[in-house]
Amino acid sequence: MGATTPALQVPSRFEKHVVRTLSNPNNEFRNSHARTPHHLLNGTVTPNSLHFSINHSGLPDIDPDKHRLAIHGLVKQPMVYSLEALSRYPMVSRMAFVECGGNSAPMFSNEPIQATAQALHGLVSCAEWTGVKLSTLLEETGIDPKAKWFIAEGADSHALSRSVPMKKALDDAMIALYQNGERLMPGNGYPMRLLLPGYEGNMNVKFLRRIKLTEDPAMSMYEGRTYSQILPSGKAYRFYFLQEVKSFITHPSFGHSLQGPGFYEISGVAYSGAGRIAKVMISADGGRSYAEAALQAPVLPKAFTRFRMPWRWDGQPVVLQSRAWDEGGNVQPTRAEFVAVRGETKSPPPLLGFPNQHYNSLTSWAVDGKGEIKHVYA
Amino acid sequence: MGATTPALQVPSRFEKHVVRTLSNPNNEFRNSHARTPHHLLNGTVTPNSLHFSINHSGLPDIDPDKHRLAIHGLVKQPMVYSLEALSRYPMVSRMAFVECGGNSAPMFSNEPIQATAQALHGLVSCAEWTGVKLSTLLEETGIDPKAKWFIAEGADSHALSRSVPMKKALDDAMIALYQNGERLMPGNGYPMRLLLPGYEGNMNVKFLRRIKLTEDPAMSMYEGRTYSQILPSGKAYRFYFLQEVKSFITHPSFGHSLQGPGFYEISGVAYSGAGRIAKVMISADGGRSYAEAALQAPVLPKAFTRFRMPWRWDGQPVVLQSRAWDEGGNVQPTRAEFVAVRGETKSPPPLLGFPNQHYNSLTSWAVDGKGEIKHVYA
Repeated sequence: MGATTPALQVPSRFEKHVVRTLSNPNNEFRNSHARTPHHLLNGTVTPNSLHFSINHSGLPDIDPDKHRLAIHGLVKQPMVYSLEALSRYPMVSRMAFVECGGNSAPMFSNEPIQATAQALHGLVSCAEWTGVKLSTLLEETGIDPKAKWFIAEGADSHALSRSVPMKKALDDAMIALYQNGERLMPGNGYPMRLLLPGYEGNMNVKFLRRIKLTEDPAMSMYEGRTYSQILPSGKAYRFYFLQEVKSFITHPSFGHSLQGPGFYEISGVAYSGAGRIAKVMISADGGRSYAEAALQAPVLPKAFTRFRMPWRWDGQPVVLQSRAWDEGGNVQPTRAEFVAVRGETKSPPPLLGFPNQHYNSLTSWAVDGKGEIKHVYA
Repeated sequence: MGATTPALQVPSRFEKHVVRTLSNPNNEFRNSHARTPHHLLNGTVTPNSLHFSINHSGLPDIDPDKHRLAIHGLVKQPMVYSLEALSRYPMVSRMAFVECGGNSAPMFSNEPIQATAQALHGLVSCAEWTGVKLSTLLEETGIDPKAKWFIAEGADSHALSRSVPMKKALDDAMIALYQNGERLMPGNGYPMRLLLPGYEGNMNVKFLRRIKLTEDPAMSMYEGRTYSQILPSGKAYRFYFLQEVKSFITHPSFGHSLQGPGFYEISGVAYSGAGRIAKVMISADGGRSYAEAALQAPVLPKAFTRFRMPWRWDGQPVVLQSRAWDEGGNVQPTRAEFVAVRGETKSPPPLLGFPNQHYNSLTSWAVDGKGEIKHVYA
């Protein structure tokens, strides 16, 4: 007779290494990152236990019965919604990735940092989100034609707020209540968050308590400072909302090793904030030649697409690399193209003003003759 | 400052009621059922912690490095695969429901049992499964033309085995290694299971260790007894593999109550082992009149489809009911049609021979003038 069946299933004891890595395990007075272990996962769904999270003042403990969402400002009829009230509205479900604007920041280093896909790219995840479209609620409140932005504010202790164009409110913005079927995880915004498919993670305000329609953006800390990326030219990107087309190989990748020549599957994830992935090309020679990968159906907009290619390794050194195109014709820039515009920095980077946002260039894994894998620039 | 970010996220303390209900919490020497709380979930994905499981001899504790899958019998070249070897083969990902043949057994009672969708229908769940198609491995082993069946055997202590037609092996049968992105849960077959999309749950053999190609079925316990359903006519269904088209309303349902007249969303899940859901009709008058529900895209074959309908409750008693059609033109039978063929039983049922398999008729929820919900037959 085996072990007792638990009320909530948990992974096997042999999977104890499959966890999020934590930047602030002792909960010091600063933000906390928890990264998804992409090199150990497969498919397109990130299980809720492993969905990345960044919280700037720890995890709030919110009683859902006491939580309220207010919509006010340039509306005709301000409204306050309880969770129970929201659950009576028409809902939608959709797969969507959420990615931190600072995901892949280690890739700005002028030397390739030897680290897993989790350490390099672990601040993106993908889940099925279910909730009420913001446009449904705005039909009820009405919109003053002067409204050009809305400001979303969370109920975490530092009341994180971001400004979002009204166009997104009327498109696919959602008040998400469920994540992969169950209520949101505490680190992902319980009991409700703003979901802005394809937009910078930080804008998908968690613990959402307030939406204020305004003429102008709030110029809150995250939009006025953190996510106004300074470029080498001295100018800055402001309101750089879109998470652009991107891909990386998860298998094989740093942390794995190939067990001798023969057949392997190369696979990874591709996604674009602009829509569906159209094509992923894979190179085994560092970008000199490419072949097209298979895309796992269904290919959904603004969601992870798993790409795959069977590959026979002859035992010689190779450099594996993926490059994605989206349905809008956008393509991942080469590293040379990307660095020319966006810059790079000495490793470790200086503390202020260094480029670390919205990296969407290529990732290259070098396999040596022994099957050991290193991170390289190619 | 809020709480510490954990390596593995878990739900809020306010969601402690969202658990699987257990038929054998003290792990006595019999089987253990754990049911998915459909009345508390939304969307189409069942989170891994809440995926239903039935285990007949507890949860085995399998070291994945020591586990092997053998394919033998009527093949040209028998093979033994380690988990690491399998991980080098081309993989596929797909959403698929798995449903126990005995799901909804309480619906055979001649009196409607007052219970939640979890208690009535909790032995079905839906996840994204990733693994190697069985047909890929059979390309390597070769198939003796005499092979008409394969017998799949698990590594649990009673070595559960089932016979499956070769046709399914060459269609969409998969050796599943991942469930919603991460390795299988222990209760769902860690480290590998057979996935037979649309077929009776018990046939999706967990802890899979052996596939033997044969001329004839094994007539193992589950196919010779449990799942050979005896009909009122005295005949029996043998090899009744398909989980037929089915739907049930999860919101509102037993365990909820309506908080006064006004707008609500009616929603639930529909699925068919034969393919995609084509249509779901919803009645608010116990089946006299119907209106068509919206189906959440993408509608995938042999997977949950969430259906939804906005509904204004006028405060009068109503009977809510859903009915699904699949792309093959199959339709959920009415209760009268179903009982005429399949029978029903006094509640509580006798111990042997009572009809309790493959219920796919309708579920009806009666809402009274106070908004209280009961399970009724209509």
